[in-house]
Amino acid sequence: MLPEPIQQSIDLFARLPGIGPKTAARLVFFLLRSRESGLSEKLAEALSDLMEKTATCPVCFNMMSAGREQCSICSDPQRDREVICVVEEPLDVPALERTSGYQGLYHVLQGALSPVEGITPDDLKIKELLDRVRGGEVKEVILATNPSMEGDATGMYLQQQLSGFDLKVTRLARGLPMGGDLEYADQNTLLRALMGRQELE
Amino acid sequence: MLPEPIQQSIDLFARLPGIGPKTAARLVFFLLRSRESGLSEKLAEALSDLMEKTATCPVCFNMMSAGREQCSICSDPQRDREVICVVEEPLDVPALERTSGYQGLYHVLQGALSPVEGITPDDLKIKELLDRVRGGEVKEVILATNPSMEGDATGMYLQQQLSGFDLKVTRLARGLPMGGDLEYADQNTLLRALMGRQELE
Repeated sequence: MLPEPIQQSIDLFARLPGIGPKTAARLVFFLLRSRESGLSEKLAEALSDLMEKTATCPVCFNMMSAGREQCSICSDPQRDREVICVVEEPLDVPALERTSGYQGLYHVLQGALSPVEGITPDDLKIKELLDRVRGGEVKEVILATNPSMEGDATGMYLQQQLSGFDLKVTRLARGLPMGGDLEYADQNTLLRALMGRQELE
Repeated sequence: MLPEPIQQSIDLFARLPGIGPKTAARLVFFLLRSRESGLSEKLAEALSDLMEKTATCPVCFNMMSAGREQCSICSDPQRDREVICVVEEPLDVPALERTSGYQGLYHVLQGALSPVEGITPDDLKIKELLDRVRGGEVKEVILATNPSMEGDATGMYLQQQLSGFDLKVTRLARGLPMGGDLEYADQNTLLRALMGRQELE
């Protein structure tokens, strides 16, 4: 019933996660209404560049601009090459970078173990992590997988795999989030905060 | 921190209504992950077609494929040319068409009166509606603006403007939505349902 180019855009938007057909239609008609802004054309260009001009870093599997040999972090001589922080997704890297509290390298697993979704160790960049560690330069691996069931299972699996190497394996601390309210903390978070309580000096 | 083409796509997605920077980042990384599906390229093509291959019907101001003289409804000889249904947005047309209960023509105002947003009668396709009515063929105008403050104000304004013509002006019925529960109907809806109660024969 709608003109073909409109229906086509709606159908494609609706394939994105969290966007149903109604939201998709709203987005497309927003673009049609703001014709003068050129937003639709700009988005079209950006999305076509998105695949052409990006690639995966062959060392840490983070995203990088196409044509580089390594991503900007792996190729930065200022970074501490003795520490590798292991994360699930590329988006976890900017989250950690924003803390300005980490100077080491990263390793992006590209997912987490999940028997439900059929994701096994072979689907993740685990072999590649072990290869990096085998290089001998690494002194510490920080497991920064998500504090979820899948993330914890992945962390435990990595801990086992790394146990044969002469290095420190650490995990991000669990506890109360900053700015939170004890009363509203969920049971699991509070239990972890209790178990991990720290002595004050 | 993110490669330029990724940041660019995130920034543009975040300009769409209801999509913040975090959701935008999630959408872009979803596209990057599903590289093999070609979804990003398809969306890029669809969005570039969206503006090139669509236009506004010069009669009813609904969306149509570019290159046509009139939209598929205005040019359909089967439609009843004596009734015009006035709606706010192009998306309202497929909603009414899905009911299969209307055989007349449409007129898309492209918005509703809103003093708050500074939208006056001159910003809407009201003059064009009056020109169509002036043609003399029209016997009924159905006001199908939204049941909101702006929609009602627009309907009232149109009613005034149309009062000088020899035609019937009607409005979509207000009342309880089908499948609804009286207990959960809001006060205004229930009041309208009471006021508009119908005698059974």
